[in-house]
Amino acid sequence: MNRLVETIPPSAIRAINDRKRADAIDLGLGQPLLGPAMEPLRSALSWVARHGCPYSPNAGFPELREAIAQHFGYPGLDSADSVCVTVGSQQALYLPIKSLIDPTQHEALVITPTFPAYQKLCHLEGVPVREVALDPKTGFAPDAQAVLRAVTERTRLVALASPCNPTGRVWPESELRALCRGLLALPNPPYLLSDEVYAELYFGAERPASPAHFYPHTLVASSLSKSCALTGLRLGWILGPQAAMKVMWKAHQFVVSCVDTIAQRAALEIFANPAILGQHRPHYVAQREVLLSALRQQGLSAVEPEGSFYCLIRLPEPWTQRSMDAALHIMETENVVTIPSSVFGVEGFLRVTFVAEPSRIEEGVRRIRRALLREAASTIGVAGLC
Amino acid sequence: MNRLVETIPPSAIRAINDRKRADAIDLGLGQPLLGPAMEPLRSALSWVARHGCPYSPNAGFPELREAIAQHFGYPGLDSADSVCVTVGSQQALYLPIKSLIDPTQHEALVITPTFPAYQKLCHLEGVPVREVALDPKTGFAPDAQAVLRAVTERTRLVALASPCNPTGRVWPESELRALCRGLLALPNPPYLLSDEVYAELYFGAERPASPAHFYPHTLVASSLSKSCALTGLRLGWILGPQAAMKVMWKAHQFVVSCVDTIAQRAALEIFANPAILGQHRPHYVAQREVLLSALRQQGLSAVEPEGSFYCLIRLPEPWTQRSMDAALHIMETENVVTIPSSVFGVEGFLRVTFVAEPSRIEEGVRRIRRALLREAASTIGVAGLC
Repeated sequence: MNRLVETIPPSAIRAINDRKRADAIDLGLGQPLLGPAMEPLRSALSWVARHGCPYSPNAGFPELREAIAQHFGYPGLDSADSVCVTVGSQQALYLPIKSLIDPTQHEALVITPTFPAYQKLCHLEGVPVREVALDPKTGFAPDAQAVLRAVTERTRLVALASPCNPTGRVWPESELRALCRGLLALPNPPYLLSDEVYAELYFGAERPASPAHFYPHTLVASSLSKSCALTGLRLGWILGPQAAMKVMWKAHQFVVSCVDTIAQRAALEIFANPAILGQHRPHYVAQREVLLSALRQQGLSAVEPEGSFYCLIRLPEPWTQRSMDAALHIMETENVVTIPSSVFGVEGFLRVTFVAEPSRIEEGVRRIRRALLREAASTIGVAGLC
Repeated sequence: MNRLVETIPPSAIRAINDRKRADAIDLGLGQPLLGPAMEPLRSALSWVARHGCPYSPNAGFPELREAIAQHFGYPGLDSADSVCVTVGSQQALYLPIKSLIDPTQHEALVITPTFPAYQKLCHLEGVPVREVALDPKTGFAPDAQAVLRAVTERTRLVALASPCNPTGRVWPESELRALCRGLLALPNPPYLLSDEVYAELYFGAERPASPAHFYPHTLVASSLSKSCALTGLRLGWILGPQAAMKVMWKAHQFVVSCVDTIAQRAALEIFANPAILGQHRPHYVAQREVLLSALRQQGLSAVEPEGSFYCLIRLPEPWTQRSMDAALHIMETENVVTIPSSVFGVEGFLRVTFVAEPSRIEEGVRRIRRALLREAASTIGVAGLC
């Protein structure tokens, strides 16, 4: 067997998910409640009825790659040659880690807490990886200086997610510019892998900034999965400078040949009617409010999400260093699924999704408080939770 | 950059394809002429209208994996746990090469001539690879002893395609059994990666045998691409023993998460009506006859294909060691696209597809003869071509 593949640690999120009961209130993974717009899918099928279902070119249909490049309009990444259409954003993260890093010389730097995909992909490819942790005391506020302090001459790629799963934090443009200024001043500026899969699900007045607007070594990974309730369509993309893209295309071509033609034709329809990309945002704004208001009512403290569909609840004593125990306790005693923050590289929190029926969110939060409080009361006799 | 990705040799087939003129007679790649059955696709879309478009489990929907396992009914590979649904057969070839071979200890053995995907995937993953060539004098007849002589104690995986692209040869069951008997007698029997992507396109009385019926270390890679004119659907699968499957699932999950839900629901419909899988075979039987009859008329000799939709034409002098020159000469002087056998690791042949309009095939073959003959006459004054 390949040792790197064999030794990837099993997914803790999956282990938790496997233990859930059928009637659980599931605030764990978060499958979109809304259905996808069907018209682009129907239109894609009509195209197949007329043209058959041929391969696309390896990197994707040129007209789709052009549409994606034009839609985002990042300077220097504004043509089909800057785009590879990928199997969801997962493959969009895989390609740069596979292709752009020399494992014998370089390393990747991952900003945590974060979804552990980047580190596991580095493990899979034998790429050394280090983490730089944002501060839980600030609610994981984006911090350019902290990241810059962690960069070394070996750092070839920095992975940054904004909006971030699990923190829900968005990098403000000023902080992102400070980060990029610092990176650009380095003798060998690393790639900045900007994971923008939640870019359409933001709750501030403005769309989250992308470093691709001011850092020429940015690679943008994203997909239709979250914005359009199309997680199963596996339609993602990576944008990047052409020298990088040429190497990523090679890996892409040998790993999967190309992406599903039906998914690509549907994506072309969506980019021709880009209002579809933002259509679900009001729903997520409302769902977030349901969760935050339930947390307030129950006296639970949380990091207020600025984007994504997740929220970190702060654990009270005696749970602050035992998030896995807390999640299992809540599952066993109250039948609610939550994800411990230890999975994302930090202690002291539970991640919950607000993609669930409002009444289930409210009941779930009541039960979470009851489970945490019961233990707090019985163990250390403290009733206050915040 | 990653040195392995960067140094994969560029595709010669692609280079030839890039030089073709818009009005060329293209006997190069072979895109199916028939359209796919639309009903399974429509049915998949109705499923999405009812259920949304969620992720499937990483390895694929259990009901699809079960249907695939049941359809083939290979001993020991007869449950969902023996299957991973992949992004076409390309990813089905990638997974074992990525996951099951320790590049520091093992090597892969590839039976040639063959489509160069296996060797390039080995290159991508740093896996040492050797080739064992079948004999052009026998028309590349399958030869168990030749393969067994090439196996060493380092051989962890043997890649075998039947029907084979480009030779069109099918391994007879007796020869396949001889190969498997020899492999099984080794102290450490290697995996046998059986590429069965053309299994539905056979021209003998019987379906090509699969080694999965009598060799327990078989991995079967296939897809809906060729049988169902669904190259663009990217719906493939790999079947294998569970110990191997568990490691391949890991790589699969991190590289692409899972395969397109719409493609999987369509595949489920197809396996529920498996007659669809063989529906296009009569068409390919007829197309093959068009090509062989045109070749006979023009006095060109070929390896008669027993499967696939390709055929190797024997090159006459002065071309026998210059297949690339021959293909370029034919393209330049007669505007016909063919693929030189050098691309597949052997000299002396041109690969042509018989997936083209019959009149184009006939005209293409006339022109091929004219180009080869003209040169033969002008260079060495020999008119006979066979």
